[in-house]
Amino acid sequence: MITVNVELGERAYPIHIGTGLIDQTALFAPHIAGKSVTIVTNTVVEPLYGDALRRALAPLGKDVRTVVLPDGEAHKNWETLNLVFDALLTARADRKTTLIALGGGVTGDMTGFAAASYMRGVPFIQVPTTLLAQVDSSVGGKTGINHPLGKNMIGAFYQPQAVIADIATLRTLQPRELAAGIAEVIKTGAIADEAFFDWIAANVDALNQCDADALAHAVKRSCEIKASVVARDEREGGLRAILNFGHTFGHAIEAGLGYGEWLHGEAVGCGMVMAADLSVRLGHLDEASRRRLVDVIAAAHLPVRAPALGARRYVELMQVDKKAEGGAIKFILLKRFGDTLIARAPDDAVQATLAATTQP
Amino acid sequence: MITVNVELGERAYPIHIGTGLIDQTALFAPHIAGKSVTIVTNTVVEPLYGDALRRALAPLGKDVRTVVLPDGEAHKNWETLNLVFDALLTARADRKTTLIALGGGVTGDMTGFAAASYMRGVPFIQVPTTLLAQVDSSVGGKTGINHPLGKNMIGAFYQPQAVIADIATLRTLQPRELAAGIAEVIKTGAIADEAFFDWIAANVDALNQCDADALAHAVKRSCEIKASVVARDEREGGLRAILNFGHTFGHAIEAGLGYGEWLHGEAVGCGMVMAADLSVRLGHLDEASRRRLVDVIAAAHLPVRAPALGARRYVELMQVDKKAEGGAIKFILLKRFGDTLIARAPDDAVQATLAATTQP
Repeated sequence: MITVNVELGERAYPIHIGTGLIDQTALFAPHIAGKSVTIVTNTVVEPLYGDALRRALAPLGKDVRTVVLPDGEAHKNWETLNLVFDALLTARADRKTTLIALGGGVTGDMTGFAAASYMRGVPFIQVPTTLLAQVDSSVGGKTGINHPLGKNMIGAFYQPQAVIADIATLRTLQPRELAAGIAEVIKTGAIADEAFFDWIAANVDALNQCDADALAHAVKRSCEIKASVVARDEREGGLRAILNFGHTFGHAIEAGLGYGEWLHGEAVGCGMVMAADLSVRLGHLDEASRRRLVDVIAAAHLPVRAPALGARRYVELMQVDKKAEGGAIKFILLKRFGDTLIARAPDDAVQATLAATTQP
Repeated sequence: MITVNVELGERAYPIHIGTGLIDQTALFAPHIAGKSVTIVTNTVVEPLYGDALRRALAPLGKDVRTVVLPDGEAHKNWETLNLVFDALLTARADRKTTLIALGGGVTGDMTGFAAASYMRGVPFIQVPTTLLAQVDSSVGGKTGINHPLGKNMIGAFYQPQAVIADIATLRTLQPRELAAGIAEVIKTGAIADEAFFDWIAANVDALNQCDADALAHAVKRSCEIKASVVARDEREGGLRAILNFGHTFGHAIEAGLGYGEWLHGEAVGCGMVMAADLSVRLGHLDEASRRRLVDVIAAAHLPVRAPALGARRYVELMQVDKKAEGGAIKFILLKRFGDTLIARAPDDAVQATLAATTQP
């Protein structure tokens, strides 16, 4: 087992990464102070890992309850979140109740926001069971739900007590979901660490084949990089924005197609292709690096061609992105692997990128 | 104008108290950084003070919008909160948008929670127009909404940029609402400052008659006391709980009757009568002090006799209170004016208090 510590002062917490962690009581024990625990999971994950997690908790003698939500990004909304509040209030859960998020990014984001807002804040633990959640949602404290007019528009910055990332749970992922997670791994290498990007390029097949050692290294290095960025900018004042490489275009794809049509990681993978195209057009990135990035994304079986939403709709959707300010879109652009810049872009360059990267 | 500073490090903010502040541009200017402002108010307050506030903002050249919510505690729920999110997203409000809460405690709590969770946090300013909101909701950063199973169960601790408490707005209050505010003033004196309690006892008629100087002093001293408590315990770890004197019983009254039937301050007034009765029964408070407290509450035209909900229902409602732990109710009890303790209470004492203080 490897442990990455996210250094956030009094909100610091450990991420434990390894194979077969989910039923290890000792990993949970230090992080549960109250008498009751509510596991929040979904209809897909509960039959796979619910029992293992409850087995880990049993020796602690807590009052353990489980709330099973419907699966999928389409349910990341207030109505579903309210099922958690209903369950907590019906069970008379108090302020020392610990919530445990068991599932992917949607479960983690919703459980985190439930924890942030139930009685104005109760502790929670993340047990991410997708690669995307292990590398992305488990670091950074971003929690929230979608609104019909925008993704993750309602939420909070709220840190977990601990993250238990069990690599063994990745074996049950659908290939699409695994690829979606690899997209975030690629992103992390591309923006922050050229050597890690090279490692990914050399090991993408091992990741595709769910090799446990390769995955553990990918999760560890991704979490380390993200933790280092977040530690320097917890509330997304500046630096942290680089983690959104590929997300401005990616969010537009997700919102434009309707949440859940493409997976978040798929949209980010394709969004990186678009952001790299724009980076070349604006003279920041060389064509060979763009080509190499696209090749790695394609090798991870991710889409590299964006859906045809129409250029006007893309711009409209990007203007309501949380990173936009006064309607001006801020793009995360690549200079070379390991180095980025944040900038606005002239309309004609954006139009040219959309023309070059979207399906006709 | 008097200014009370709430000392919370990087989250510190000023409370400006005085007559005729609402249209003073200079009070708002330092606290609005972005290009747009959304005023959140309700159908009662908008026709009274909406124009004055917009007049204050006009010279700043911001894009100012107004969202008018339905009035009353019955609307302090997700559906109403979502009207704010709808308006913000439709207007493409970005992360630097400032929300201004113009109204009473319900408006302040909902606007604060909207600000805490819109895009995971945007700045907000409180312009409380009721006495209750000026002395209570404007200090402490408590924001939130109700759930059918409990009051203020969903929310956040989130501090405003500034509070502008215009005493002149209190002239348009209904007598019931003024009295509800005086209840919180009485509470503050009772728990923390005997000299202030004596002043209230001597000046309760001036407060009833909406005397501007008396009200300004009451607001100032209440805010100072509350600010000092909150500064030492921002997230309600311990000390801050004393501010809930009268609230355990009071919340049960509000929830039991249905939110909005009694005003919050009325329920707190009556809740203090009940908490004082329990304090005497448990040997902490002398009977003469209890009598004096009840007299001051009655002199403020507040109810001193609790509604007949049935003892079992009272206990049930108090067990789901946020301050309860594992079903055990924690009572804030009075030892003497200016001194409290927090304790559980034997069932028979609680039953005796309920029998003695509720209507037959």
